[in-house]
Amino acid sequence: MARITVKISKSYNVHIGHSLIKSLRVYLSNLNLGKKVVLVTSHSLNNLHSNKLEKELEALGLEVKKYLISDGDISKNISEYFNLINFLSNSKITKSDTIIGFGGSSVIELAGFCAATYHRGINFISIPTSLASMIENSVGGKTGLNLVGIKDLIGVYFYPLVVLCDLDFLETLPEEEWENGLVSLIKYAILIGDDFFDILMQDDYKKYIDKLIEDVVAYKREIVEIDENNLWESHILDLGNIFAKAIMTLSENSIPYGKALAMGINKIAYVSYKSAGLQKRDYNKIINLLEKYNLRLSLPFSLNLIVDTIKNDNNIYNNSFDIALINKIGRCFVEKVPVDRLDEFFV
Amino acid sequence: MARITVKISKSYNVHIGHSLIKSLRVYLSNLNLGKKVVLVTSHSLNNLHSNKLEKELEALGLEVKKYLISDGDISKNISEYFNLINFLSNSKITKSDTIIGFGGSSVIELAGFCAATYHRGINFISIPTSLASMIENSVGGKTGLNLVGIKDLIGVYFYPLVVLCDLDFLETLPEEEWENGLVSLIKYAILIGDDFFDILMQDDYKKYIDKLIEDVVAYKREIVEIDENNLWESHILDLGNIFAKAIMTLSENSIPYGKALAMGINKIAYVSYKSAGLQKRDYNKIINLLEKYNLRLSLPFSLNLIVDTIKNDNNIYNNSFDIALINKIGRCFVEKVPVDRLDEFFV
Repeated sequence: MARITVKISKSYNVHIGHSLIKSLRVYLSNLNLGKKVVLVTSHSLNNLHSNKLEKELEALGLEVKKYLISDGDISKNISEYFNLINFLSNSKITKSDTIIGFGGSSVIELAGFCAATYHRGINFISIPTSLASMIENSVGGKTGLNLVGIKDLIGVYFYPLVVLCDLDFLETLPEEEWENGLVSLIKYAILIGDDFFDILMQDDYKKYIDKLIEDVVAYKREIVEIDENNLWESHILDLGNIFAKAIMTLSENSIPYGKALAMGINKIAYVSYKSAGLQKRDYNKIINLLEKYNLRLSLPFSLNLIVDTIKNDNNIYNNSFDIALINKIGRCFVEKVPVDRLDEFFV
Repeated sequence: MARITVKISKSYNVHIGHSLIKSLRVYLSNLNLGKKVVLVTSHSLNNLHSNKLEKELEALGLEVKKYLISDGDISKNISEYFNLINFLSNSKITKSDTIIGFGGSSVIELAGFCAATYHRGINFISIPTSLASMIENSVGGKTGLNLVGIKDLIGVYFYPLVVLCDLDFLETLPEEEWENGLVSLIKYAILIGDDFFDILMQDDYKKYIDKLIEDVVAYKREIVEIDENNLWESHILDLGNIFAKAIMTLSENSIPYGKALAMGINKIAYVSYKSAGLQKRDYNKIINLLEKYNLRLSLPFSLNLIVDTIKNDNNIYNNSFDIALINKIGRCFVEKVPVDRLDEFFV
C-alpha cells in the first residue's frame, strides 16, 4: 500500500494497493466531487467489476451515470468522444461534477480527454485496471484520441484529482493483457535497473507486482516533476516507443502495443550497444530478458519502411527526434537525432 | 502602441498598435515558430487582408498553408475542428510548427482549440481583427467549440505565444461588428469606470479606440493574473454574460452576442440597483450609456423562460452561480447565488 504524491502544477495522489474500491470513502473524502459522477468503462469491466464500484459511489451519496465503450484502442476516436460529450450534456453534468475513467488505457485516455475539454475542464478520477494502464496512465496526465489512423493525433495533458491503482483488478486480467503490461515493465527494468531488473529476470514477477508498480510510479513521478511539460527528461520514458509506434502504424494496429514495444526496445538496445556506450554484458542481459518472455524481436517490416514511417510522423520537434538510449541498465539518456541522420542512426 | 505582458503559468505579450503586420519580424523574431505556419482565417478576411499577412510570413522564411472557414460563430463546430485537424495532419504540420488564428472570435477560438489539442499542443499565435475579439480574446486563453446548440460546450484554456492587435484592421470593420464590440466596451466602461466611462458617454469613442483597447487589455491582465484558473475574480469579466448566453440560446443564436449582452448588462444593472448598493445616479448613468447607443434593452423572452434556461445551463459550479454585480461604476464584485434563489434574485 503506497501513496505517492505527484507535485506538479497540480498536485495529486496516486494510491496503489488492494481493495481500494471497498474503501472508496477514504480516498475520495477530501475531494469535492459534486453531485453526479459519470462512470466511463468498457463492456468487459462492466460485467466483472463495475457494479461494485457503482454501489460504493452511491454509498457516498453520489448519483452515478454509466457510459460504456468497447474494449481497446479502437474506442479512442472522435465519434466516441462526441457521443460521450453529448451524454454528459444530456445527463446535465455540470462543472462541479466528476468523470471517472475505469478501465484500461483507452478508457482512461478517452474519459480524460472528455473531462479536460467539457466546459473547459471538470473533475476527473482515474482508476486504471490493467497492468499496462497502471504503469503508463497513472502519472503524467496524457490523454489522447486516434484520428485518421494516427495514434494520439489529438489530446491534452490533464491531471486527475486522484489515481487509484487497485491491484485486486489484476486478478481477473486476461493473459494477453498481462503480456501487454509486461513489456512496459521490461522497459522500466531497463530504466530503473537493480532489484527491479533482477526480479523480472529471475523470479515470478507476479509475486512482486505490488512493489514493481509502486517503483514505476515513484520513478515516473520523479521524472515528471523535473519535466512536467515533456520537453526533455520525460522522453526517456518513451524508450523504444518511436519504433513501436511506427510498427503499430504499419500494421494498422494489428500488432498490439506490448509486442511492438518489445521490438522497439530490442532495436534501441542494439543501437545503444553500437553507439551509446552500452556494454556487451548489459546488452546481452536485456536481450535475455526479452527472450525469457518469448517476445518476438525480429521486425515484421523492413528497416527502411519503418524509418520512413518514423520520418513521416509529425510528432516531430525542431526537425529532429529526441530518442531515449541506454548507457547501462539503470542509466538511460536522451539524444537529439536530426531527421536526416535517422537512417544511419538505425542501421 | 503598447506591449502588455501577461504573467501567468505561461507568460506572453499582447502588442497593441498600428501596422503591426508590416513589422512582423519585430514581434515574431524571438519566437521559435518552426518551418510551417497554418494561417486559419475567414473568407472575408482572406479577401481583405490575408495576402499581406501571408507575404510577411513568407518573408520571414516560413512556409504558409491557409485554411479558410466561414465567418461567425457557426464555424466553431466539431466537424470544422475535425477538418482542420485533418488539414494539419495532411500538411505534415509537426509539433514545432505554428498555427495562427487571424480573424474574429470564432476564428481565434477554433484555431486555438486545434493548436491546444493537436499532438497535445503546438505553437499558437493570435491575431484578432474585430473589435470584439481584440477585447474578448486577447487575454485569458479561452478556446471553445459549440456543440448540440450549446455555446462553448467544449474547450480548454490555452495560451498563445503572442497576441497582435493591429488596429489598422478596424478600418475595414463592418458597422455591425463595431456594434458587437461596442457592447463589450460598455461592459468595460462599467468595470473600469473613470475616463473610460466618460469617453464612451461623451465623445466619439472611435477617436480613442487605441487607448480603450489598451485599457481593457491591461485591466483583464490584472484580473487574470490574480485568478488564472477562473475560480472567482475572473467572473467579474462575465458581467451580464449569464443573461446574454440564455438569450442567445433561446433565440437559437439569431440574436448576436453584442445585442444579447446589452440586455444582460441592463438586467444586471437593475438587480445591482435593487440589491447590491448601486446608487440611483450610477444606475441612471449606465442606462443612459446603453440608450445613447440605441441598444434594445427590453427582453425578447419572458423572465421566467430566461431564468429557466440559465438554470438548465450545465456550466454551473457547486449548485450555484457566481454572478458579477455592480456596486458603483468602476467597482464590481462577484456574488454566489444558489440555483434555488435565482428566481427571486432576478425578479
